[in-house]
Amino acid sequence: MSVKRLVFMGFGNVGQALARLLLQKRDLVQRDYDTDFIVTGIYTRRHGAAINPDGLDIHKVLNKLKQGGSLDSLSIAECPTDSIAFIHTYPGDVLFENSPVNHHTGQPAIDHLKTALELGMDAITANKGPVVHGYQMLTKLASKMGKRFLFESTVMDGAPIFSLFRAALPGIELRGFKGILNSCTNMLLTEMENGRTFEQALEYGRQIGITETDPSADVDGWDAAIKVAALSTVLMGIPLLPQDVQREGIRGITPFDLESARSQGKRWKLVCSARRNGNDVEARVAPEMVGPDSPLYSINGTSSYAQFETDTLPGLGIVESDPGPETTAYGLFADWLQTLKQGG
Amino acid sequence: MSVKRLVFMGFGNVGQALARLLLQKRDLVQRDYDTDFIVTGIYTRRHGAAINPDGLDIHKVLNKLKQGGSLDSLSIAECPTDSIAFIHTYPGDVLFENSPVNHHTGQPAIDHLKTALELGMDAITANKGPVVHGYQMLTKLASKMGKRFLFESTVMDGAPIFSLFRAALPGIELRGFKGILNSCTNMLLTEMENGRTFEQALEYGRQIGITETDPSADVDGWDAAIKVAALSTVLMGIPLLPQDVQREGIRGITPFDLESARSQGKRWKLVCSARRNGNDVEARVAPEMVGPDSPLYSINGTSSYAQFETDTLPGLGIVESDPGPETTAYGLFADWLQTLKQGG
Repeated sequence: MSVKRLVFMGFGNVGQALARLLLQKRDLVQRDYDTDFIVTGIYTRRHGAAINPDGLDIHKVLNKLKQGGSLDSLSIAECPTDSIAFIHTYPGDVLFENSPVNHHTGQPAIDHLKTALELGMDAITANKGPVVHGYQMLTKLASKMGKRFLFESTVMDGAPIFSLFRAALPGIELRGFKGILNSCTNMLLTEMENGRTFEQALEYGRQIGITETDPSADVDGWDAAIKVAALSTVLMGIPLLPQDVQREGIRGITPFDLESARSQGKRWKLVCSARRNGNDVEARVAPEMVGPDSPLYSINGTSSYAQFETDTLPGLGIVESDPGPETTAYGLFADWLQTLKQGG
Repeated sequence: MSVKRLVFMGFGNVGQALARLLLQKRDLVQRDYDTDFIVTGIYTRRHGAAINPDGLDIHKVLNKLKQGGSLDSLSIAECPTDSIAFIHTYPGDVLFENSPVNHHTGQPAIDHLKTALELGMDAITANKGPVVHGYQMLTKLASKMGKRFLFESTVMDGAPIFSLFRAALPGIELRGFKGILNSCTNMLLTEMENGRTFEQALEYGRQIGITETDPSADVDGWDAAIKVAALSTVLMGIPLLPQDVQREGIRGITPFDLESARSQGKRWKLVCSARRNGNDVEARVAPEMVGPDSPLYSINGTSSYAQFETDTLPGLGIVESDPGPETTAYGLFADWLQTLKQGG
């Protein structure tokens, strides 16, 4: 049985959910992949960092963070404060990159992933930035190193979108897609339909941990535009930046608009769409009224939906209901299992 | 470039759509899989059969059938009238099995697939019967021969269900599913909502080629039950026969029921469901009223939907819109590409 050394860059809700999932699935990984794992490094921005080439005690790590403590005390040696230097300290076999990212540049996530690949590690992330801003470079580098750059959790959390096209839809051509890809705005619209004001809905979103302190990335359609850009770049092979996506957020949608839609049996949704046009793609994020004959109509709260138009299937839709950090963690876990499948 | 020899057992709408798709995708198969193909045998029950170890002219075959002619005149030698003997005549590399099947036994499809595997061919089918009645035997035989038994098109046509779980959802446990899996009854209910009587809806279904001469397999829920049994057997690892599925068809649904549902903002759907219970599964096909908060509500006409409940994703749904023979053909084509991926 081979033992893989896992390194976590960033260890917030998603990283911790992944650690719990790994513990829960350890027997399965041993049985089906003849593989065990140890966690040799965890780096956080605000809760310290820890390294141990023989493997950290994951239970102790999770408990320490639960108590609000620092990881420093669990480390066998002092950790570099620089995140790139940290990855160099004890390179493992896999880097799980889930650190805070600048969506306009994809940094520092891109540099973390690049460093990992250069050191011969598989590089797995739930951060969209590196896909939009570094897909070509990171994919080429991974291929050169005989490693993988995987990012299933970046769009629709752990629902299999990229792996669906990679592994389950061979020989297909994607012509376009349409969907609801931003959980936060869909939740806000749902709450406003239920009578809350925009401000009340935002506050509710903050309480349940869906809405950021500064909600503008979601509310103004940037997050949705980044996801559209990621899908276009990876699945349609047409590199697209978020600023190339025609974008309108939900600030213009009033309670009156929602009530008016309801009286017509319809709902307002923040709809993402993209369509291939020769070697180019027309991409858009904008509020649309949808009726009950559309699958978008029944997508409530934080659920999401993508419908793909291909040359051979007239319409294929994927619904993800009620995601949470555990859902995102599953996408990262599934990516890791894909590297085991490939690597033998 | 290797050349694969394809044999078609049954060559109706689906087989012919597959032949057209193969011609359309030939360049892609050559480029991405370093593989070309010839069709060395086609067997039909009512339109003759043809063999040619150097490859039949597919265009001529399709034209001949379009004109209502027999394939016999295109054969370089007399074909055995027995279908098993036919497969033995010039064994190819792949058998596409789409002949008329007895749903209570899975025959003669099971024997066709078994023969192909024994002869060292990959065995691919759109027939549900062999999955429900022969899954264990055919899968074991395929494994022993180093070949594949694949059947993506048996449930939800070409939408990737089996390959999704096989290739894109590693390490996941399926706990249950719910959905609309029978196109015919969903179309009948949709037409009845639009004011047609049951008999008129049946007649309309016959005109568009959706309803069988004897519609009872669909209307009484047998087709749906077979699909539930196939999903349980393959994806949950719990062998189930159609008769093990608690089953109620749509004969009891009256125009009054549909109108009554509409007045409540709901719709009647023939809903399939299954849930793991220890080593057993509780499976059911029955009409249910669903509201607009359910993804099932917006599934119109011949479209279908399946929602999967797993241990790691709270809800994952797959929608297939407006399928036709081309959609089923894509599933068979995708299965074949999977064998190329595996075999190298």
